[in-house]
Amino acid sequence: MASTTEGSERKTDRLEAFSDAVLAIAITLPVVELKAPDTPPGGDLAADFAGLGSHYAAYGLSWAVIGLYWGYSHFSGKIIRKTDHGYNLLTLLFLAAVSLTPFPTRAFVEHLNDPANSQVAALVYSGVLTAPTILWSARWGYAIWRGLLDPRLAADYVASVTRRYAGTTIVSVLGMALVAIGPWKIGMGIIALATLSYLLPPMTPRYKPGEEPASELSEADEQD
Amino acid sequence: MASTTEGSERKTDRLEAFSDAVLAIAITLPVVELKAPDTPPGGDLAADFAGLGSHYAAYGLSWAVIGLYWGYSHFSGKIIRKTDHGYNLLTLLFLAAVSLTPFPTRAFVEHLNDPANSQVAALVYSGVLTAPTILWSARWGYAIWRGLLDPRLAADYVASVTRRYAGTTIVSVLGMALVAIGPWKIGMGIIALATLSYLLPPMTPRYKPGEEPASELSEADEQD
Amino acid sequence: MASTTEGSERKTDRLEAFSDAVLAIAITLPVVELKAPDTPPGGDLAADFAGLGSHYAAYGLSWAVIGLYWGYSHFSGKIIRKTDHGYNLLTLLFLAAVSLTPFPTRAFVEHLNDPANSQVAALVYSGVLTAPTILWSARWGYAIWRGLLDPRLAADYVASVTRRYAGTTIVSVLGMALVAIGPWKIGMGIIALATLSYLLPPMTPRYKPGEEPASELSEADEQD
Amino acid sequence: MASTTEGSERKTDRLEAFSDAVLAIAITLPVVELKAPDTPPGGDLAADFAGLGSHYAAYGLSWAVIGLYWGYSHFSGKIIRKTDHGYNLLTLLFLAAVSLTPFPTRAFVEHLNDPANSQVAALVYSGVLTAPTILWSARWGYAIWRGLLDPRLAADYVASVTRRYAGTTIVSVLGMALVAIGPWKIGMGIIALATLSYLLPPMTPRYKPGEEPASELSEADEQD
Repeated sequence: MASTTEGSERKTDRLEAFSDAVLAIAITLPVVELKAPDTPPGGDLAADFAGLGSHYAAYGLSWAVIGLYWGYSHFSGKIIRKTDHGYNLLTLLFLAAVSLTPFPTRAFVEHLNDPANSQVAALVYSGVLTAPTILWSARWGYAIWRGLLDPRLAADYVASVTRRYAGTTIVSVLGMALVAIGPWKIGMGIIALATLSYLLPPMTPRYKPGEEPASELSEADEQD
Repeated sequence: MASTTEGSERKTDRLEAFSDAVLAIAITLPVVELKAPDTPPGGDLAADFAGLGSHYAAYGLSWAVIGLYWGYSHFSGKIIRKTDHGYNLLTLLFLAAVSLTPFPTRAFVEHLNDPANSQVAALVYSGVLTAPTILWSARWGYAIWRGLLDPRLAADYVASVTRRYAGTTIVSVLGMALVAIGPWKIGMGIIALATLSYLLPPMTPRYKPGEEPASELSEADEQD
Repeated sequence: MASTTEGSERKTDRLEAFSDAVLAIAITLPVVELKAPDTPPGGDLAADFAGLGSHYAAYGLSWAVIGLYWGYSHFSGKIIRKTDHGYNLLTLLFLAAVSLTPFPTRAFVEHLNDPANSQVAALVYSGVLTAPTILWSARWGYAIWRGLLDPRLAADYVASVTRRYAGTTIVSVLGMALVAIGPWKIGMGIIALATLSYLLPPMTPRYKPGEEPASELSEADEQD
Repeated sequence: MASTTEGSERKTDRLEAFSDAVLAIAITLPVVELKAPDTPPGGDLAADFAGLGSHYAAYGLSWAVIGLYWGYSHFSGKIIRKTDHGYNLLTLLFLAAVSLTPFPTRAFVEHLNDPANSQVAALVYSGVLTAPTILWSARWGYAIWRGLLDPRLAADYVASVTRRYAGTTIVSVLGMALVAIGPWKIGMGIIALATLSYLLPPMTPRYKPGEEPASELSEADEQD
């Protein structure tokens, strides 16, 4: 089985570069939606700027979510040793999901206090927040299954990373279920906490005894 | 003859980076078209989200097509050894064609059940799906002609890749002809199958006996 | 304390690439706002082009500000040796601030001679000019605190860079305060000077005696 | 004098990557302007697609101009050895000029047969075509002045590249002058020829005797 995608195995550098480019574009594109008001001379520019509040909040939220995922993508290149066709396709799905997060953000912000629609707006938004974490965990599981991780990583380290990713995903899915069945503010709060857990730094890799790699940084020193 | 473009021969890394950047932008830009509905407070947000169905389908289709081409571009850097001015220009044409695929996608989705226009919409869409595969094959042929491939590749491997690319191209052109002359649903189905064939992983490179390169991955291991 | 983010320490190459991608997008996106006039045949195209003056000025200003920050980012990779999770997050904030600078630029240009709104427009614009320099200095301070700089740099060199960055930041904040309390033209002039100080080339790094690294360029020579 | 920008000297890889990113965005962004027609069911979709002719022409022209400049940028990294702050700033100006070329393209195409405006449209368009070639030559001259070229290049090779760049620039400026004083079709034809001269491959570098570098490609072979 493993041989069927062997032809597409490569180092991860080009996949990392592509991921970074997509995330860089996804995080910057929402700026296009931020348009300064077309206040006429003598109009009330200050009020018009203030009236864009939901645009600012949507922009900030989008930036935060995409930025946190970039932070973790940045780290994952350190412990993934190679990529194959299936991992590339999962990465494309993950990137599509992350790129979509800005789409319903403003609708969510604007309907926060609209009883007729707040739950629908929250449900759509919780969906685009939950999709990336599901795909992130799926991709991690695929990498373990296909042997794409650095083989020197300690088994208990890999297990603890798996627990952390799976935990975040399960919590997000539960939060989304709460949003769907009624107490959407609690559900959104849970999803927000799950997403903000990415503010914590990644866990320092641990290696099998005697197989610790020279760090990237020692290499960097030697190159100087 | 070969000497006329010799001055522009370089390794492929910068061409790969540029291709990846264009594909990353092309795959992300359609997000801009996905705008959450401007439902007023008390309006029917759920219905408005649901009414964007053709936008979601168009976005998904565009992402899939561009993503699959990226997957194969990612692989091709493994077996192309160098680039020259002509290969760069063909790459620019290929990238232009791929970048255009989102353009008529939504029109195609929206006119699927419009008897007056379904064939026209399908014809334009089949054209933007077929153009990249023609240019992909043309570029591959150019690389063989100019000796840009890794010279250690086995001749029968190169021949089988050529058959696969040429086959996909011929099938797409035939599909487009069917769309033009009448049975457009069959034609589009054929093109869809040809495009989806890129979901299959690329063929593992085979080398001339005794000339197998150390893999990228062994290098990566040694560097650690 | 230092160990809590150790797991996310990496060389700076991927962070540099991501920063460059975001800045490349941010600097190019304002082109989308520059639309040629839709003059009908026989209309006055020359007058319509001329009427876009505030668009040209806004585009030029945005390009200059983002371009100057890119120039300094380009340099900083030379003296920062590694990055960690916190440095990544500060970089994300810095990039968000720089990406926002085009947002109120046209409003500022268009209200320059509108007595009712010139100060408000200037205040918003001074805010988006001042935010990046605050974050730039904050990131520099963080890098010193966490030991992310090249350890061979001479202490007095680091101190003089710190003075320069802190000085630019303090001057910008003072300029913004002037804009807020009344004499906004003086305040904007001060901020403009602070921003234009980035036109000066960065200070040549000085190293501890005996620890001068071989330059990047000697390496480049050896590789040829 | 040379020491004032010494602090900002670096290898060109990051500048190349930034240039490529900006050009990749600039070449892809005009796709956003290509919107499929919003033909209602039962309307005449074919006619509506055909009516977008000037959009297609503008997109094709923009792609060609930016693509050709990318082709030459791709090559220039081969013969420039290092960059400094001034070279970075000139590169930013060059990229701004190239990014602007799509701006008046559609206006030019649409007013080709509008006697009242064809010359104005041609003049604006000739301006955005001429600006990049002026900045390209200026940057080349700066690189010679500051000693940024590979020092092993033969003096007569550098002189012939200079003649070629300067020639293209002078021809473009003369063409623009013709557009300004009256016979704008001849002027535009001259500028088109000057721009299309970039379709020719770059001149193969020649080196001082005994200083020929091992080629990038031999390195690539050794690495395998």
